[in-house]
Amino acid sequence: MIRRLAILGVGLMGGSLALALKRTGLVETVVGAGRGRDNLDLALKAGVIDVIADTAALAVQGADMIVLAVPVGGMPGVMDQIAPNLDDRAVLTDVGSTKQDVVAAARTLLPNHLARFVPGHPIAGAEVSGVAAAHADLYRGKDVILTPLPENDAAAVERVRQMWQGCGARVEAMSPEDHDRVFAAVSHLPHLAAFALMDELAGRENSEQFFRHAGSGFRDFTRIAGSHPEMWRDVALANREAVVAELDAYIDRLYRIRDLVSSADGDALMEVLSRASHARQQWAQIKKRTCR
Amino acid sequence: MIRRLAILGVGLMGGSLALALKRTGLVETVVGAGRGRDNLDLALKAGVIDVIADTAALAVQGADMIVLAVPVGGMPGVMDQIAPNLDDRAVLTDVGSTKQDVVAAARTLLPNHLARFVPGHPIAGAEVSGVAAAHADLYRGKDVILTPLPENDAAAVERVRQMWQGCGARVEAMSPEDHDRVFAAVSHLPHLAAFALMDELAGRENSEQFFRHAGSGFRDFTRIAGSHPEMWRDVALANREAVVAELDAYIDRLYRIRDLVSSADGDALMEVLSRASHARQQWAQIKKRTCR
Repeated sequence: MIRRLAILGVGLMGGSLALALKRTGLVETVVGAGRGRDNLDLALKAGVIDVIADTAALAVQGADMIVLAVPVGGMPGVMDQIAPNLDDRAVLTDVGSTKQDVVAAARTLLPNHLARFVPGHPIAGAEVSGVAAAHADLYRGKDVILTPLPENDAAAVERVRQMWQGCGARVEAMSPEDHDRVFAAVSHLPHLAAFALMDELAGRENSEQFFRHAGSGFRDFTRIAGSHPEMWRDVALANREAVVAELDAYIDRLYRIRDLVSSADGDALMEVLSRASHARQQWAQIKKRTCR
Repeated sequence: MIRRLAILGVGLMGGSLALALKRTGLVETVVGAGRGRDNLDLALKAGVIDVIADTAALAVQGADMIVLAVPVGGMPGVMDQIAPNLDDRAVLTDVGSTKQDVVAAARTLLPNHLARFVPGHPIAGAEVSGVAAAHADLYRGKDVILTPLPENDAAAVERVRQMWQGCGARVEAMSPEDHDRVFAAVSHLPHLAAFALMDELAGRENSEQFFRHAGSGFRDFTRIAGSHPEMWRDVALANREAVVAELDAYIDRLYRIRDLVSSADGDALMEVLSRASHARQQWAQIKKRTCR
């Protein structure tokens, strides 16, 4: 049970967490802080939060659970603001899409609170953003990755785990390094690749002709290109090394396909497409079995 | 009204067309021909077709509407087989994803039937294939592009148009050249890009670790990588020049993003991602308005 939950950054992620916890009665009061006053007013009106705090520093006063839900580039600034005001017993977590950079910031800016700062990343999101898109079911059946620190109190990890399980999520632990390497490939790269296609077409003089004929394959491929630009800029920069390595590997693979098409090597192309199609179908079946 | 419809290649596309026309009573008898006897038996049992023909040449005998629904690489072979048996009044069309190559094959192999061969491309599909996936609603609300030839009888074009409208589709005309250029960008490229990501990850020793953590963004981005490998090999080769040009443009764009990440140029990266995100959201709104 959380008595006073501070959500720092009341958008899709933070707002949905508040709604999920409220619905199951796992929280008494939700305090919200963030950059946009209109957004906070909307969150208050919609019952996502109960109290608006003027600053992050004020929001954490008396809070027993604090969730940093800003884009990862904003984490150091928020940590810096809240450090002096943290209750000694408060548990902290975050929803950042990258973990090594958040951990590094916490080591620098929250050195006295490392026992109770449990880094996390819910694998949920949408091509929409802002509190208006928040809903209590966002995390149901989704995975939440925690990357606990060696310094963490077991009780703090357990509280964060229970909070996410209370939202219907499945909780798993990894190292921050493994997390960032894996998600560079399966999340950060596809996002940048989808942004790249939209940017390429949008920049053409006759872009309207292309967009008009784009169908359901294009729709799904580019869905994540509608995501929050600031969030993904921060992710790409925070996980720069792994993201660049994945982009290089992907560009190489595309270039190989380009060469097979250019030289009309149908057999080799068939081999590549068959392996990919087979892997995609296997993946879909495994995901179905694990109910994700 | 179609008296005898010959479907050459009874898969997802041809099977769904037969089911849609049967449901609305627009066809009397459907004859199917194709490479796989098991597939044809299944189509017969499921009521997708009424008669199995042992060859394409036999299937077209007495047919007043003939639909070539094989992968585009198979079109010349089918045209060659059916040419001697075509009824003088039969109207022909195809569902190939590329048009210039199909038109070129028809000019060579069906020179006496160009007045009644109306090339077409329904913009519908799925990551599943085969007649087992066929359903009567596949074309409802979807676009069908026709690329009529200068030689076409107006009446033949009108019959093909009415057939597709009877399936609930919207019919539009373009030149084969425009068609292939536009679909290289909005369809062929995204398919190859999705295949490339699946192939890249499937080839890794620890691919299981990556696939296990892939979420809904990855799911949508790679959905079309589950598509029919032979069909897409044929499309890439048939539309080679435009596909290579699109791959080059896409690789360039990815490389620019890679450089912005690598040099940590957050402002320029933000500009690219914002433009892409804005374009994607605009596109989604336009598509919603046009009910697609």
